[in-house]
Amino acid sequence: MANSAEILEHVLNNTPQSPHPITYQWLLPNVRGLDNFLALWQARTQSGQDAYPTPPPSPGTNEGPPLNTSSQDANATPSATSSPPSHELSIFTAATESFTQKNTNCSIAESLTRFEPIMTRGKELNLKVRAYISVALGCPYEGPNVDARKVADLAVSLLEMGADEISVADTTGMGTAPKTAELLKTLNAAGVDKTDLALHFHDTYGQALVNSVVALEHGIRTFDAAVGGLGGCPFSPGATGNVATEDLVHCLHSLGLKTGVDIEMLAEIGEWISGSWGGE
Amino acid sequence: MANSAEILEHVLNNTPQSPHPITYQWLLPNVRGLDNFLALWQARTQSGQDAYPTPPPSPGTNEGPPLNTSSQDANATPSATSSPPSHELSIFTAATESFTQKNTNCSIAESLTRFEPIMTRGKELNLKVRAYISVALGCPYEGPNVDARKVADLAVSLLEMGADEISVADTTGMGTAPKTAELLKTLNAAGVDKTDLALHFHDTYGQALVNSVVALEHGIRTFDAAVGGLGGCPFSPGATGNVATEDLVHCLHSLGLKTGVDIEMLAEIGEWISGSWGGE
Repeated sequence: MANSAEILEHVLNNTPQSPHPITYQWLLPNVRGLDNFLALWQARTQSGQDAYPTPPPSPGTNEGPPLNTSSQDANATPSATSSPPSHELSIFTAATESFTQKNTNCSIAESLTRFEPIMTRGKELNLKVRAYISVALGCPYEGPNVDARKVADLAVSLLEMGADEISVADTTGMGTAPKTAELLKTLNAAGVDKTDLALHFHDTYGQALVNSVVALEHGIRTFDAAVGGLGGCPFSPGATGNVATEDLVHCLHSLGLKTGVDIEMLAEIGEWISGSWGGE
Repeated sequence: MANSAEILEHVLNNTPQSPHPITYQWLLPNVRGLDNFLALWQARTQSGQDAYPTPPPSPGTNEGPPLNTSSQDANATPSATSSPPSHELSIFTAATESFTQKNTNCSIAESLTRFEPIMTRGKELNLKVRAYISVALGCPYEGPNVDARKVADLAVSLLEMGADEISVADTTGMGTAPKTAELLKTLNAAGVDKTDLALHFHDTYGQALVNSVVALEHGIRTFDAAVGGLGGCPFSPGATGNVATEDLVHCLHSLGLKTGVDIEMLAEIGEWISGSWGGE
């Protein structure tokens, strides 16, 4: 697999076009990761080339929204309009000391200290910062009963430091409906606004959609998922992938929610990527 | 795979012992299937041998519950008591004409006619009869919008004929939370008592546990599942297995419900059977 710098370079040079806005998130473990990101990103944006490729001028008119006529996309539908993608900085800490040590080789307090320069530079450059709190509903080293108040304290600290969004992650899939409800009540009691939260479920024990519905009932509207249920975590032994985007979107649509996602195209992508990934 | 007669013969000759009562269900497509079942079952019960193996007499006492000391079970725990298994007759029809034709080669009305002698014989022999209604939340031939009133009418007919329990089956996995709720409301409005119902979900599109929680909220307390999510239906193209018993039991326990199931032993069985089943 390509490293983050290669992926970033590819995305900046071959930006996919979409009728809906796409936000790319770049996981930055420390300020060195930020420097690597900025070196590439600023080279593009400061050389006059935006990350969004400018369409060639139309001979008839220069008005109206840019048409998706870039020669880079062989499958472009000429009538589809396209929005420029945006980029976000993603940082990650965890709800337990053991996991933070294994995942990022520092204490929780040290992880917050590491985030400060990233937050500062992000604000200067008008880049949003998304903070993940891993193992919020169960830790592979400390067990299923993670203190919800610890998660809430961390969320408050991260928001006060300037994080734009907190993704509360059930990295191990140990979350259950009552634990999810308790965590969301604790976050609410600590003053964390539901619009500042995203939930990030893994489906290791099959509970991800049940937990997502509980989160919906608590007003959460942002969810992380992965096409085909891909993913996992090298520091969470046995953990399987994120909840499959297809299953989540199907569930949300069934409840009457609008996502803007074409579920049939999503399922095609899921089949393609699952077929490419291995022998399953 | 062994045929039903071989499986029945094996179970009657080598009855597993359990501290909780086990009910075996025998799918009988027609009265010939019933005759085959009865030939084997009555040979055992009428020859004085019950399906439940009698433990050897204890030298010290003949009183108290039978101890699980049968030499047939090498893993028997001497202190565990054991309940005799029971046997149920299972019959199946479907909520759409197309599926009934494909699955059982007759119309829905004809399927009910076929059930009459099975019901009659079952009552005579004091055997309970469980009736399945397939494709109750989506049909591979007629689409996702199956008429809930059709399911309710069938359930009422089957109960009036003498069925002891109705298993409402989402054979295709097309069920969603709102569709499950609507179906249960329709069944209730038709006079079907929730204690006469079991729900049977397949997890083809990942919604089985969400639907199960909806059913719980409507008072349903009997659910079908399969260890390791095994199963499927040869007449429902693309349908995957039943919801995994492990995931369902984990969900029920998380909600504070008691099932009597040891989830760790269940997970071991799931791993064993999934490993035996194929190269996955």
